[in-house]
Amino acid sequence: MKKQNKISFTILGINGAIAVLNSEQFHIIHIDILTSGPAEKNESLMDAVFSSNMRPRFYEKSGFFQKYPEGRTQGIAVTFSGQVLTQDLPDFSDKNNACLLALDQIEDPQNFGQIIRTAECAGIDAIIFPRHHSANISDTVLQVSQGAFINMPLIEVTNLKNTFSELKEDGFWIVGLENSIDAKPWHTIDYKDKTVIVVGSEGKGIREKVLESCDFKATIPMQGITNSLNVSAAVSAIIFERLRQIEETH
Amino acid sequence: MKKQNKISFTILGINGAIAVLNSEQFHIIHIDILTSGPAEKNESLMDAVFSSNMRPRFYEKSGFFQKYPEGRTQGIAVTFSGQVLTQDLPDFSDKNNACLLALDQIEDPQNFGQIIRTAECAGIDAIIFPRHHSANISDTVLQVSQGAFINMPLIEVTNLKNTFSELKEDGFWIVGLENSIDAKPWHTIDYKDKTVIVVGSEGKGIREKVLESCDFKATIPMQGITNSLNVSAAVSAIIFERLRQIEETH
Repeated sequence: MKKQNKISFTILGINGAIAVLNSEQFHIIHIDILTSGPAEKNESLMDAVFSSNMRPRFYEKSGFFQKYPEGRTQGIAVTFSGQVLTQDLPDFSDKNNACLLALDQIEDPQNFGQIIRTAECAGIDAIIFPRHHSANISDTVLQVSQGAFINMPLIEVTNLKNTFSELKEDGFWIVGLENSIDAKPWHTIDYKDKTVIVVGSEGKGIREKVLESCDFKATIPMQGITNSLNVSAAVSAIIFERLRQIEETH
Repeated sequence: MKKQNKISFTILGINGAIAVLNSEQFHIIHIDILTSGPAEKNESLMDAVFSSNMRPRFYEKSGFFQKYPEGRTQGIAVTFSGQVLTQDLPDFSDKNNACLLALDQIEDPQNFGQIIRTAECAGIDAIIFPRHHSANISDTVLQVSQGAFINMPLIEVTNLKNTFSELKEDGFWIVGLENSIDAKPWHTIDYKDKTVIVVGSEGKGIREKVLESCDFKATIPMQGITNSLNVSAAVSAIIFERLRQIEETH
């Protein structure tokens, strides 16, 4: 099944529901609320529900948990349709410190969602990823992102290498986060200009062909014995280092 | 049930299993392997299994998945007993840049496990947390930590404030990560000397009484709209910033 064919999404939890309801990008299909659950007691959420012009359906416990047996609902589930992905790169020509995150083969929906969430908090401008070998943008991905997917362009591309070529013409530097001999400590790289930060999956890293397109390689040297840094933790370290560099020069 | 009463733990997955088997801290109770699963094909794991002197039990798919229906087993489950927690602070008197992480009321086992994992990679010396209002050190916590719990002292204390007083006498500075008006950007704080970094839960933050013990407050200013930074992502940003500061002065 092609990813674009997913017709509707269901997001559980208060933060995600507020984000979906308050954005005007989506068509709300239904809003299910657990009677006397945490959601019903949350004022910001209930404001968002009532300004959505969609009458919510209230359920008793048995009915609600039968319908939503998994995940942390906090007593709210919003089903909606609309465009979550795009194929078009925004125009970054007048943003001198634009920063994109490129995910090469991140197939774990938890990591994918977590990265969207962290990226939004760190002011990343868009996330790009190849159509194949990426996690489907599933309910889990959106869920874990806690609604951050709404404010983060998620750009699906056919070929990362080709997209990097376009971006390089636009003045972007490509930095690959990869634990190789010629990589430099992550904090010695300059992320203050237009930058694409590329990360690969934990097991496989960045594909060789994609790595060849990188202008710089950054590494986060491990200090322990187990040394298995989660990819979303690595992303957090590097994108907040970028923010630090930008803030320190102001 | 008191946490210390948990008699045995089961860890699933290749990384965690290798870490448990190779450490000599635990009594291995049994090793269950899925015949022809990913674990059986992993050389480092099978080396660890055979040097453990415990004969593994092999299962066909139906038997294995009946026994371990949840989680990502990668075809391996190791059950063990032994001391995972401690009540004693190590002696840090001769380590000038020791850094402890204090978790105030982190009740989510995913976050707890992820923080252990990231902390080990970033060279944190120990994690301290109050006996009450913390996640139980469950299979999930150990699982998510990917075996990092073995190399990270996990110190359960009765009262964080009292422990901070002891640590202050030992020359530690206490830094609370808290989004308050008088907090300074995380990267303007000096973490190069003995430091305790305190984080609270996402919903509730650090308790007022604990916050009063902090010498400094650090904040990670949010750049987006949703702005719900996961606590383990926040920890990653701050502890790798510490590492950067230490590396830059060498």
